[in-house]
Amino acid sequence: MEVELKEMLDDLLSLRQSLSDPSLHASIDQMQLRVDRLTHLAKSVPVRRTKVKDMSAEVVDTNPYSRLMALQRMGIVENYERIREFSVAIVGIGGVGSVAAEMLTRCGIGRLLLYDYDKVELANMNRLFFRPEQVGMTKTDAAVQTLSDINPDVVLESYTLNITTVQGFETFMSSLENKTFCSRKEGSGVDLVLSCVDNYEARMVVNQACNELNQTWMESGVSEDAVSGHIQLLIPGETACFACAPPLVVASGVDERTLKREGVCAASLPTTMGVVAGLLVQNTLKFLLGFGHVSPYLGYSSLKDFFPTMAMKPNPQCSNAACLERQKEYILAKPARDAAAKAKMEAEASAAASAGDVPLHVDNEWDISVIDDNEPEKSTCGTSSDALPEGLTRELPSADEYQKPQPSGATDTTIDDLEDLRRQLDALNAD
Amino acid sequence: MEVELKEMLDDLLSLRQSLSDPSLHASIDQMQLRVDRLTHLAKSVPVRRTKVKDMSAEVVDTNPYSRLMALQRMGIVENYERIREFSVAIVGIGGVGSVAAEMLTRCGIGRLLLYDYDKVELANMNRLFFRPEQVGMTKTDAAVQTLSDINPDVVLESYTLNITTVQGFETFMSSLENKTFCSRKEGSGVDLVLSCVDNYEARMVVNQACNELNQTWMESGVSEDAVSGHIQLLIPGETACFACAPPLVVASGVDERTLKREGVCAASLPTTMGVVAGLLVQNTLKFLLGFGHVSPYLGYSSLKDFFPTMAMKPNPQCSNAACLERQKEYILAKPARDAAAKAKMEAEASAAASAGDVPLHVDNEWDISVIDDNEPEKSTCGTSSDALPEGLTRELPSADEYQKPQPSGATDTTIDDLEDLRRQLDALNAD
Repeated sequence: MEVELKEMLDDLLSLRQSLSDPSLHASIDQMQLRVDRLTHLAKSVPVRRTKVKDMSAEVVDTNPYSRLMALQRMGIVENYERIREFSVAIVGIGGVGSVAAEMLTRCGIGRLLLYDYDKVELANMNRLFFRPEQVGMTKTDAAVQTLSDINPDVVLESYTLNITTVQGFETFMSSLENKTFCSRKEGSGVDLVLSCVDNYEARMVVNQACNELNQTWMESGVSEDAVSGHIQLLIPGETACFACAPPLVVASGVDERTLKREGVCAASLPTTMGVVAGLLVQNTLKFLLGFGHVSPYLGYSSLKDFFPTMAMKPNPQCSNAACLERQKEYILAKPARDAAAKAKMEAEASAAASAGDVPLHVDNEWDISVIDDNEPEKSTCGTSSDALPEGLTRELPSADEYQKPQPSGATDTTIDDLEDLRRQLDALNAD
Repeated sequence: MEVELKEMLDDLLSLRQSLSDPSLHASIDQMQLRVDRLTHLAKSVPVRRTKVKDMSAEVVDTNPYSRLMALQRMGIVENYERIREFSVAIVGIGGVGSVAAEMLTRCGIGRLLLYDYDKVELANMNRLFFRPEQVGMTKTDAAVQTLSDINPDVVLESYTLNITTVQGFETFMSSLENKTFCSRKEGSGVDLVLSCVDNYEARMVVNQACNELNQTWMESGVSEDAVSGHIQLLIPGETACFACAPPLVVASGVDERTLKREGVCAASLPTTMGVVAGLLVQNTLKFLLGFGHVSPYLGYSSLKDFFPTMAMKPNPQCSNAACLERQKEYILAKPARDAAAKAKMEAEASAAASAGDVPLHVDNEWDISVIDDNEPEKSTCGTSSDALPEGLTRELPSADEYQKPQPSGATDTTIDDLEDLRRQLDALNAD
């Protein structure tokens, strides 16, 4: 528009020069003023935010990352800027997926991969993100438009396709495998997949892809009555996959498409979807940047503001072959995991020991002292190292007591072999 | 812009007529073409959604309210359309307030009153709602621009002022008292005030206004380290007001402004603020439309996904005089409240009794029958009325067993007095 107006101005100037009659100059002057005003109006049309090379922690009004980099100063995140290295795929850009994409974009995520095949409708306006003027656009195009305006630093890849078709699934798989953004030796080309779809079939497709690629992902969903939702972390082989515990309706072989009735639409609310998107991306940030505790499953029941949590182990009879393979690998890798955990614990212990010379707090108004957990307790309340509060008794012996059976009159007996153990057992039974 | 272009075209036409030299007509024609192109470009600027007279439940892509009206069919809300009668005031249009405003706008709230004095900065871009092209605008103006584009049915009133100044407080009070939108006999002109401010001083001002007006409000807040937040319902006289339990730093007389250090900014995240806004507006909808349970206090601790709840009674020694007055009124109105509650319970009981003749479910594939809780159980599994599943035993006797002690050989003994009880106890000890 500004180019057109500039040319218009040139036209007027050259016309003025060719005019022999000076009485017409006033008319030209007037048009020139109009063009000036139009240029001014055109300039008030939004200019885009420029790209930022490095994330700065500087506290100035013009720094879009100052409030995020402050997470480091507050001791929440060790290195916030690492977020630029991560790729997150979001499948389904609806009421939850679009808001999740906006949150990650505003957080300055490195790269977002967006998948959807739907178009924006006025009927979507009761949820956040899409605007009425985007009606008719594909959700992927509309999302790219809005997200690139908000933060041009984020690399956006959009795929207008249905992942439940053969062709769609192939493109979905190869897009996840593409490692050009951040070269790494192991795994896929993304750090996390977020499933924000609205049906079981699509969830099973995401599950299949992630099981095949050994790709950690997060599930999200909102109930048909719009007042409940959930998020779930799925690590192939380690946690239950989406096929490990199928819903009753699926287990009984009913096609879910027959459940949808003509002319009936599910309810939805921007509140429930906003909360679910917020919980999903918060756990994504915890997972990527390594702070807090990532919830394995978190429900949101809005009528009573109830937030159930749980964890699910994989099902050894899972119907998904790729899941069974990941489960086998996970079991085989146990010794390596244990060794790594032990090494980490030892490193931390030695770090703590060397740091132990320096007092953490100089002031100690309340005379608080730290007791070493490994030191045997000097308490007189009994021989158990973890004494219970007064009035409580143990129904079962503690795990420690199980490992060190102390038959009466036989304290400090060392068990050398299985025979020895059997003899002790016989002695106990004879009592 | 279109008006300017139209006038430009008129200028060109009149200039053409005054030109004696026809060789110059080509230049005019060219400019006319430019103006046509510019008019076309200007028209491609988004068209706005038209207003909707009635909320329809019709399931068509073009109905912005279909997913909300579905809440009625799902049995969640009795009458969703009532939302158009309600007025909600939002104080502070920042990371929480702006998202709360967008959610209520998309839900089709009747009227929104917005209060803020700040301007949009690039440093706000890590939270939802505001866009980079709005930098420099007041938050109220930017919010009205975005919200009216999203839903022109909502009546928006914006106040660019600081409620903690004398003049600002006066305007704030009179705007809350204005009843022209929905005439009602009692209370103020709004149904709920949402406090989304970021400092104690402003919260105390909202508290003062709501105590004076006997106005129910909701508090919201996000911690300085960005990973926790809360919402709280405050009903003057009935629950604790914001001055009933002041934070330690305020109680010890420290000016909170001295706590802010130069060059240090608080951290913030779109996730935490989105979750808090979602919980706030979900409870607003429950409060206005009368469904579910409105939480008196709900916390969000994102590191562990922990959601504490609690309720706080008003402090009879509260420092706020208006709060004490509301407390007095609340106690005086107790007999009237009790009578109303009793009448409601009786009406519901009689409605349930008359409805009892009609079976709720006609199909009964699984032969489910209802057992009257008052009827003694005919089970043969023991005398206890709540038998445990096989394999489980009770550690402590159930409350029923405590009430009916059954010493061996003394079944069906009726205890007449304390003497009798002592004799039975002696007999037991002698065993």
